[in-house]
Amino acid sequence: MIVDSALYRGGARAEVDCAPHDYPTLRAGAKHEGDFVWLGLYQPSQHELEEVAAAFDLHPLAVEDALTAHQRPKLERYAGAMFLVVKTLWYVDAEDAVETGEVAFFIGPDHVITVRHGRGSKLAPARELLESGEEQLLTEGPYSAVYAVVDYIVDGYVNVMEGLTEDVDEVETSVFSDERTQDSARIYRLRRELAEVRRAVMPLREPVRRFANGEDGIDPDLRPYFRDVLDHLSSISETIENLESLLSSAFEAHMAQLSLQQNEDMRKISAGAALVVVPTLIAGVYGMNFTHMPELDWTFGYPFSLLLMGVVVAGLWVFFRRSGWL
Amino acid sequence: MIVDSALYRGGARAEVDCAPHDYPTLRAGAKHEGDFVWLGLYQPSQHELEEVAAAFDLHPLAVEDALTAHQRPKLERYAGAMFLVVKTLWYVDAEDAVETGEVAFFIGPDHVITVRHGRGSKLAPARELLESGEEQLLTEGPYSAVYAVVDYIVDGYVNVMEGLTEDVDEVETSVFSDERTQDSARIYRLRRELAEVRRAVMPLREPVRRFANGEDGIDPDLRPYFRDVLDHLSSISETIENLESLLSSAFEAHMAQLSLQQNEDMRKISAGAALVVVPTLIAGVYGMNFTHMPELDWTFGYPFSLLLMGVVVAGLWVFFRRSGWL
Amino acid sequence: MIVDSALYRGGARAEVDCAPHDYPTLRAGAKHEGDFVWLGLYQPSQHELEEVAAAFDLHPLAVEDALTAHQRPKLERYAGAMFLVVKTLWYVDAEDAVETGEVAFFIGPDHVITVRHGRGSKLAPARELLESGEEQLLTEGPYSAVYAVVDYIVDGYVNVMEGLTEDVDEVETSVFSDERTQDSARIYRLRRELAEVRRAVMPLREPVRRFANGEDGIDPDLRPYFRDVLDHLSSISETIENLESLLSSAFEAHMAQLSLQQNEDMRKISAGAALVVVPTLIAGVYGMNFTHMPELDWTFGYPFSLLLMGVVVAGLWVFFRRSGWL
Amino acid sequence: MIVDSALYRGGARAEVDCAPHDYPTLRAGAKHEGDFVWLGLYQPSQHELEEVAAAFDLHPLAVEDALTAHQRPKLERYAGAMFLVVKTLWYVDAEDAVETGEVAFFIGPDHVITVRHGRGSKLAPARELLESGEEQLLTEGPYSAVYAVVDYIVDGYVNVMEGLTEDVDEVETSVFSDERTQDSARIYRLRRELAEVRRAVMPLREPVRRFANGEDGIDPDLRPYFRDVLDHLSSISETIENLESLLSSAFEAHMAQLSLQQNEDMRKISAGAALVVVPTLIAGVYGMNFTHMPELDWTFGYPFSLLLMGVVVAGLWVFFRRSGWL
Amino acid sequence: MIVDSALYRGGARAEVDCAPHDYPTLRAGAKHEGDFVWLGLYQPSQHELEEVAAAFDLHPLAVEDALTAHQRPKLERYAGAMFLVVKTLWYVDAEDAVETGEVAFFIGPDHVITVRHGRGSKLAPARELLESGEEQLLTEGPYSAVYAVVDYIVDGYVNVMEGLTEDVDEVETSVFSDERTQDSARIYRLRRELAEVRRAVMPLREPVRRFANGEDGIDPDLRPYFRDVLDHLSSISETIENLESLLSSAFEAHMAQLSLQQNEDMRKISAGAALVVVPTLIAGVYGMNFTHMPELDWTFGYPFSLLLMGVVVAGLWVFFRRSGWL
Repeated sequence: MIVDSALYRGGARAEVDCAPHDYPTLRAGAKHEGDFVWLGLYQPSQHELEEVAAAFDLHPLAVEDALTAHQRPKLERYAGAMFLVVKTLWYVDAEDAVETGEVAFFIGPDHVITVRHGRGSKLAPARELLESGEEQLLTEGPYSAVYAVVDYIVDGYVNVMEGLTEDVDEVETSVFSDERTQDSARIYRLRRELAEVRRAVMPLREPVRRFANGEDGIDPDLRPYFRDVLDHLSSISETIENLESLLSSAFEAHMAQLSLQQNEDMRKISAGAALVVVPTLIAGVYGMNFTHMPELDWTFGYPFSLLLMGVVVAGLWVFFRRSGWL
Repeated sequence: MIVDSALYRGGARAEVDCAPHDYPTLRAGAKHEGDFVWLGLYQPSQHELEEVAAAFDLHPLAVEDALTAHQRPKLERYAGAMFLVVKTLWYVDAEDAVETGEVAFFIGPDHVITVRHGRGSKLAPARELLESGEEQLLTEGPYSAVYAVVDYIVDGYVNVMEGLTEDVDEVETSVFSDERTQDSARIYRLRRELAEVRRAVMPLREPVRRFANGEDGIDPDLRPYFRDVLDHLSSISETIENLESLLSSAFEAHMAQLSLQQNEDMRKISAGAALVVVPTLIAGVYGMNFTHMPELDWTFGYPFSLLLMGVVVAGLWVFFRRSGWL
Repeated sequence: MIVDSALYRGGARAEVDCAPHDYPTLRAGAKHEGDFVWLGLYQPSQHELEEVAAAFDLHPLAVEDALTAHQRPKLERYAGAMFLVVKTLWYVDAEDAVETGEVAFFIGPDHVITVRHGRGSKLAPARELLESGEEQLLTEGPYSAVYAVVDYIVDGYVNVMEGLTEDVDEVETSVFSDERTQDSARIYRLRRELAEVRRAVMPLREPVRRFANGEDGIDPDLRPYFRDVLDHLSSISETIENLESLLSSAFEAHMAQLSLQQNEDMRKISAGAALVVVPTLIAGVYGMNFTHMPELDWTFGYPFSLLLMGVVVAGLWVFFRRSGWL
Repeated sequence: MIVDSALYRGGARAEVDCAPHDYPTLRAGAKHEGDFVWLGLYQPSQHELEEVAAAFDLHPLAVEDALTAHQRPKLERYAGAMFLVVKTLWYVDAEDAVETGEVAFFIGPDHVITVRHGRGSKLAPARELLESGEEQLLTEGPYSAVYAVVDYIVDGYVNVMEGLTEDVDEVETSVFSDERTQDSARIYRLRRELAEVRRAVMPLREPVRRFANGEDGIDPDLRPYFRDVLDHLSSISETIENLESLLSSAFEAHMAQLSLQQNEDMRKISAGAALVVVPTLIAGVYGMNFTHMPELDWTFGYPFSLLLMGVVVAGLWVFFRRSGWL
Repeated sequence: MIVDSALYRGGARAEVDCAPHDYPTLRAGAKHEGDFVWLGLYQPSQHELEEVAAAFDLHPLAVEDALTAHQRPKLERYAGAMFLVVKTLWYVDAEDAVETGEVAFFIGPDHVITVRHGRGSKLAPARELLESGEEQLLTEGPYSAVYAVVDYIVDGYVNVMEGLTEDVDEVETSVFSDERTQDSARIYRLRRELAEVRRAVMPLREPVRRFANGEDGIDPDLRPYFRDVLDHLSSISETIENLESLLSSAFEAHMAQLSLQQNEDMRKISAGAALVVVPTLIAGVYGMNFTHMPELDWTFGYPFSLLLMGVVVAGLWVFFRRSGWL
């Protein structure tokens, strides 16, 4: 599906009199230095993409990768053109889960083609921000569009990290609360989500570093902007490592808490048992059948025995309380 | 055993009028630039392989390696010819196990000799795909055959990873299920299988990277194809690491579940014990032999005592239920 | 908020007849080699900072970073000017917690602008020390001010490390004490604090190493001073690693202690139980209703039975004491 | 002790008319390109070695290292001569232990001196194989002797690895068997043995890699042979890592099994206890002294009570069996 | 405190007619190539050191480092002179503890100044050995003194490692002994000591490697000697790693032993409990008040019941023995 297609010239959207999918005409319009076509596709069919590939001379292996989602983030050069894959991430609050999509970029001297897969990561805001001219980057050629989209996607990562940071904080509170909690399952799930984010963020650093270093013929004025994105990625990857290590520590602490609880329960149970078995012994003694047991014939022998039991139980209670067993 | 032997010229199988094992004639046919002989052997005897070695001037150390299986994946240069070893993997569903075979390649300017060991990894489909000309690679010389076979083998790795990913998902479900499961044995087995895959995949990355970088005189047009294989290998190795770390987390969670279960069982047992020992105490009390125990002479003393026991048991039951011990 | 602004010339504060925020006049005063303006800001408003940015030609991306706190330590070059971010740390004794602030530096040939965020890390002492001329560094240009402030901040790190080292010592003592302690929560908290310090210290090493290597046009005479700071950072990072590994060992030892305690408690409880159930058995025996039980008719049968119980209990007591169960 | 000393010329042992310890005469015989003396010593006295050192100009530090065993594998250059230390390993089946010896090599243009320490690693077979001329390497000068010995020693490593692999397999079986086994001690011992092998194998890779790369003036024809040794070492080190990680996993699984067993035992014990305490309660009830207890006067009251106990015990038995507690 | 000061010329101590602290005269004596002054200080006051610094042109930052102990091992160049810090270690048998001192070296073309801190690491033996001329190194200039001292210090490390290795062996024996031991505390302490040694040894390798590589203008004849020291350091660091990994394994094994012991104790306790509760049940049965209980009236009913109890207990005893519970 074609989402949008436009020709940019001198920092603004230029009017081209043709259908959105009349690619050759569009491309032919990008005649001047800095002109470029930005074509946005959403889960295109093989046919749609092949039409585009023919018009912009895309490499068949790159086209194949762009068609099937589930690629790793990567940057590859195919005879003068670049092929970039970036993962999109968003946080689904209801399930504490991170979902992923994918955007593939074909970057040539006169075009940028973005192919998006997955719900929840529309690129329109990035295009709008760029067109608004707030950052005056459009005059820098196709990489300005790449920057706009990648920056927008990386901002999405930041949101995801905030969601996950909050989740880890909750786990932390839960582990050290006195309630019996099933934290290990939640820790496991968060670790899996973090690993997913890691797989999206880590491999993206290398391509962005290359852009920030001005490789691949990027305009020097754009370099600080890509460095800014790289800085965001570094900060995110630091947060990932921090959360992972917090989860590890939290899990270990959880194990210690379980062990502690086991011990406390055992002592509580034992103290409770003592409160029953000791009076049982007393009852056993007065249940013996000796002929000569003076207490048995006392008028208040029975109440005395109950009192004895009560006193012993109370004494044990106080003793166990003091030793912290009850 | 010779599986197939053929001369390829200009992108197609050329007819050569000789027996399949008449190697000198076959080799002599490869006169033009890009011509090459592709000889496929399956667990050859020492004699068979030495005949081949004589015809194609293979280095004795490489021949020795090709004879005995159980080599590590590697790429070695012997005076102008390359020797490549690749592991084949397949997933045996019935046993959740990964089995391995091996393919050794002798690669010269005018020949590719593949020596296969182990069941379950026939290379015929790779040869057929190449001959079908779908990817028009055969004109690129012997490395096109190397690409075809390696690509086919790596596709096999992907299948294995899918099987293992499914197994890890099952383990995950099992660990967090309420049933008592023997997950540690399964986790152990999966780890061992993953280590086996790792040993096949990791050392293969370096040779493929060299091919993708165009070292060893590979045709530039083939480079993107080897880069594609490298990309697959990277993706597989990422999956391996992910599964390994999931298994680690799952094992830890399993330990936590065991600890939790231990605790729950202990509390359940203790609560159950209380339901027996408390009425035993009551029976003990009414078993005492005091002369003056008014209850003993009541008409309904006995039913009363039973009722008392019942009430106490019921009370304890409610109490333990509420505290989550039963 | 402008904290201080001054022009330094020939190693001393030079009088400039203008308001503190008359930046163009200040800057114009820095005419000679080695002259520079040092402007200190504390949590400036966007407006304040933009005024400064205009007067000193600061790059908009760097200005944005300086406005919002929560940056990572980093050094970036923007067309001839450097942008440095350093974290400040201080130790809050009452809560055993480490708090963080941030100082951003804009460093040009004729100016240093420090932008501070967060309480508890006033830079005035650094400026005073530098002006006191004790180390005679002011003649070395703007980097002497950078050195003065960074050295002062890193001295703050050393204090924080001392606080944390003391905390770790306390944890160590607590883990191996005989008292039941909730060490896992404290270990967790200390690990989290250490990770925070690590995030402040580690990324700062690279910029300081660059200064110490004389990159970025730093005066050779200043290099040993930055190397000294680098040495402090290395020593701190070594301490961090040491404390982290001590905490890991302490946690493991804590788990072992819990396990040991569990075992000891179990044996103690069992021995205690034996002291009750064995006399209960004796009482049960003399509670049997056999017609012919000679002891029952003995005059001293009852005291004898109590004595028997006492002897048995005493014997068990001695036995369990000797085996270390009680 | 001198084990053997000979002059090799043109690929064969040359007759020299002198005593085995007449080193100067021997050395003088090595006049032509490729001639070399191979002197084999076994735990030489300081005096013996100093005589050799004087005849062959050996560096005193190297001589000192060769005298005292317990060196690490290493390769060092002393003014034109090389000094190589290699560990020998053998597996003692009776004790599941790995024992180590040591061979030091002094390698000059016209001599190889091997100094062996420790039982169980005689080098005679290596010399015989080389002299047999099977691999036609003797014409390649002193490094052919180095290759012959190192190859022979590394073959010994392979045997050790086979022994250890078998041991790990046994541990694996034992961990997952239903019997209670003391696996942790065996795992510990195997880890220690593996670490010993690791210390012998890992540092040897670098010297062999240098020989395989043709550094230190090694004949190009010998390079593939050293590469073959390097390949063996890589394969061994891979096996070491694999066994280490299997042992780690096995240990973790062992802990899980212990925990599981603890839980099962606890449930079994509790169920067993229930089978005793519940009939005890019944006996207690019928031991009460109420005047009006109809059952007591029934003719078959006693058998009835026993039957009741039996039925309850049987019921509990079935119940616990079904829930998997017994 | 000045420990010793001397001028060395041509491999021997030269007579200089001046007070030990008349540094300018001493230095002036070192006129020829290879002459040098060796000044040994022990915990000098600031005044003493400043006097030395003035006479030998030492850099103020290096002097500051030499005054305050607690530096990390390091090598730094200050305008033509080198500053080296080395840790000294010694093993205190009584406490199983490692104590540390420190030696700082100022190395110039005509002088070596050693500044020692901490008890237990006198350098006199190193000076004596050097002066004895046994290794004929004194003619090599100031670095021969550096070698002598560093070699002497590193020999001290070897002693420390022997002490620690013995301790680890004891821990190993203790962990697998049948006695209940508090191994976790000792393991913790040993880990801490090892970390201390590691911090002394690891950073020293880089400076010694530089000396061994002949950097910093060291005489080629001295290089093998520094390489020998480096070899010692490598061997020590290997031992450290080995001991650390043994302690890790020992700790894990200790945890397994605790778990095993817990299980065994639980089974022993349960079997013991059965020996009491089962006869209690029998006593309870004969304590029932049924009118018709034939056994009660048997003449030998009471002995019979006791016999029954004895038989049951004996039977249980045999049963539990056989199942390994007792």
